[in-house]
Amino acid sequence: MEEKDLYLSNDRFAKHAGIVLTEVKPGYAKAQMKIKDFHMNSVNLVQGGAIFTLADYAFAAAANAYGRVALGVNVNISFLKAGISGTLYAECKEISKSYKLANYTVTVTDDDGDKVALFNGIVYLKS
Amino acid sequence: MEEKDLYLSNDRFAKHAGIVLTEVKPGYAKAQMKIKDFHMNSVNLVQGGAIFTLADYAFAAAANAYGRVALGVNVNISFLKAGISGTLYAECKEISKSYKLANYTVTVTDDDGDKVALFNGIVYLKS
Amino acid sequence: MEEKDLYLSNDRFAKHAGIVLTEVKPGYAKAQMKIKDFHMNSVNLVQGGAIFTLADYAFAAAANAYGRVALGVNVNISFLKAGISGTLYAECKEISKSYKLANYTVTVTDDDGDKVALFNGIVYLKS
Amino acid sequence: MEEKDLYLSNDRFAKHAGIVLTEVKPGYAKAQMKIKDFHMNSVNLVQGGAIFTLADYAFAAAANAYGRVALGVNVNISFLKAGISGTLYAECKEISKSYKLANYTVTVTDDDGDKVALFNGIVYLKS
Repeated sequence: MEEKDLYLSNDRFAKHAGIVLTEVKPGYAKAQMKIKDFHMNSVNLVQGGAIFTLADYAFAAAANAYGRVALGVNVNISFLKAGISGTLYAECKEISKSYKLANYTVTVTDDDGDKVALFNGIVYLKS
Repeated sequence: MEEKDLYLSNDRFAKHAGIVLTEVKPGYAKAQMKIKDFHMNSVNLVQGGAIFTLADYAFAAAANAYGRVALGVNVNISFLKAGISGTLYAECKEISKSYKLANYTVTVTDDDGDKVALFNGIVYLKS
Repeated sequence: MEEKDLYLSNDRFAKHAGIVLTEVKPGYAKAQMKIKDFHMNSVNLVQGGAIFTLADYAFAAAANAYGRVALGVNVNISFLKAGISGTLYAECKEISKSYKLANYTVTVTDDDGDKVALFNGIVYLKS
Repeated sequence: MEEKDLYLSNDRFAKHAGIVLTEVKPGYAKAQMKIKDFHMNSVNLVQGGAIFTLADYAFAAAANAYGRVALGVNVNISFLKAGISGTLYAECKEISKSYKLANYTVTVTDDDGDKVALFNGIVYLKS
């Protein structure tokens, strides 16, 4: 999957946020983010946008790994536990896929294995 | 609202993403983000996480501006138009507020006034 | 819009739930539901499914009124105030529309004009 | 769990929609709905509101089965496959639970075992 990796490795915002893909295959991906000071919000918790970006990158990787361009249409995210330190892990699984639409769930966990966020996203698949 | 500004100005991830608050009052806020290369995804569109972070920052500002800590519980975001260049603008309005929960809508627009994203978020208000 | 009305008037579940369309045009619709005992849940509040069905019917009417079949892909609904008695009103407005996807917001209010629910839905437009 | 069953069995809208609970324990529930003509929308598919109500009833049962009143705050539902005939099954699992908020996922399947809808709901737990 070298082409895919190349393609995805050009995601500058994910890079800017310190996120790394650790596994990608069609319909499945994992990413992680070591928590740094620049991820923090004003009350010293990992900012919601950083957690979203981590999950979103795994989602984009899984959805685009078939080779067709998949555009994010809608995402629902629930924040379950604050991120404080260590590393956050995102795992994306495919829920369903039709010709034009596909649905993915990403679970974000911390070093204790606790759920930090639950993310559900829909993509539109271009022809 | 200098204290609030101070409080919010310590959001390091928003700063890292180049986002600026332009107006804050209880239940209402505006933020903006000048699109730069580091906001881009692999297909040269503004990454979903960057758009989310912009909207989320306006949401956090509006919800926390009453002075009680407001924690994000859930967000739903629809991506309506790709962001390509120029500046993106987020405007957050309060939909409802009870003692423990409040609901906000953020609309993200571009320089043409077109809707880029629609964001709806819920906070839990700490005692 | 007699053909549309005819088309939509065959929605048996909306009828079963006592919901009536009061206005329909492309991208816009209104519906209402007089609260009856059969709408109640076990704690004598209008059941979430009844409120959803009311909003969903206005959404379907607005989205299908262009004449192309619009299939619901995703809905996000926030419950803001309990429904107890009187009539509930749903008003659906179009947020955006492209060739294959469109986005609608429905606000549900009660006789006091208070917001009972906020609903955001996405449809996929068949060719 | 006879008291719970009694409590939940007074949900008149679920009954009106022909939905039956088949299993309930704290944080977990199953419900089912035999598809009848009154569940149909104008294009002879099970109406979104009927599918929502089925999932919502399993969600309410799982969340309320601890004995504290749990109020639905927000639901996100994705419609994955049309319901046409036979029976629809909802299974609700708990994702997380804190003192005031809890998060549940409901998967709706049909007789072929295919996913019809994915539902994620949040409740606020009263004191």
